Amino acid sequence: MRLTTFTDYSLRVLIYLAVSEDGQSTIREIAQRYDISHNHLMKVVQELSQRGYLVASRGKHGGLRLALPSTAIKIGTLVRDMENDFALAECLGDNNHCVLTPACKLRSVFKEALEAFFVTLDAYTLEDIVAGRKGAKLLKILRPG
Amino acid sequence: MRLTTFTDYSLRVLIYLAVSEDGQSTIREIAQRYDISHNHLMKVVQELSQRGYLVASRGKHGGLRLALPSTAIKIGTLVRDMENDFALAECLGDNNHCVLTPACKLRSVFKEALEAFFVTLDAYTLEDIVAGRKGAKLLKILRPG
Repeated sequence: MRLTTFTDYSLRVLIYLAVSEDGQSTIREIAQRYDISHNHLMKVVQELSQRGYLVASRGKHGGLRLALPSTAIKIGTLVRDMENDFALAECLGDNNHCVLTPACKLRSVFKEALEAFFVTLDAYTLEDIVAGRKGAKLLKILRPG
Repeated sequence: MRLTTFTDYSLRVLIYLAVSEDGQSTIREIAQRYDISHNHLMKVVQELSQRGYLVASRGKHGGLRLALPSTAIKIGTLVRDMENDFALAECLGDNNHCVLTPACKLRSVFKEALEAFFVTLDAYTLEDIVAGRKGAKLLKILRPG
């Protein structure tokens, strides 16, 4: 049971921007700091922009910044937005061949468990992740010196 | 976010045995009824036996049966036992390179959400899945005629 790298990277991008002192950065800088693929990150940033989490501006002083205050970004909502496959089991997906489906209660049990998972994530905003002492430590890691 | 086919099949095996009128079946029969790989199912059954969910007896009247009453098999415990990878994100796995790890609160947030997921699953036993009208319908599907 794993989230996609796509979702993982989207969280890292938002954390990066939330702890930046001027609130701005570039794909190149973020990719370098995390040592992850620039191309992959471009797609992540594109999706985050389309979904209204980021704004990207061009030009010499351009770059990426959060489109919303970090208190308004719920972790559960972000994960729901970025993760494309919540079919925990075959019966929750598009390609379901399980003969039990018409009579099986597991489907609703899995849905309920997934809901509990997201309710927990939604109790945290991006601000909760980057606030306080942990935030200061994150800043030191991401913008050393 | 998906459970493995291994976990999915283990649930199907236990459901099959729980709704069987004589409580017994064979790998061949279960594989045929679900139209799934016999070899894959053998490995699932082996793991379920080793973990004390099933007993397999040999001989002419041999076969598989539940080693526990279906009221004693919690869905959450079973999923924890059969699923081998709960590393939702890189930071929860063995191969973690994320620079944020020493300062990032997301790890504990993910752990909390995963715990809420399992607490929900653990509120249901195998008996809850196969009891009542749904159980009668399952029996009709699995043992028609």
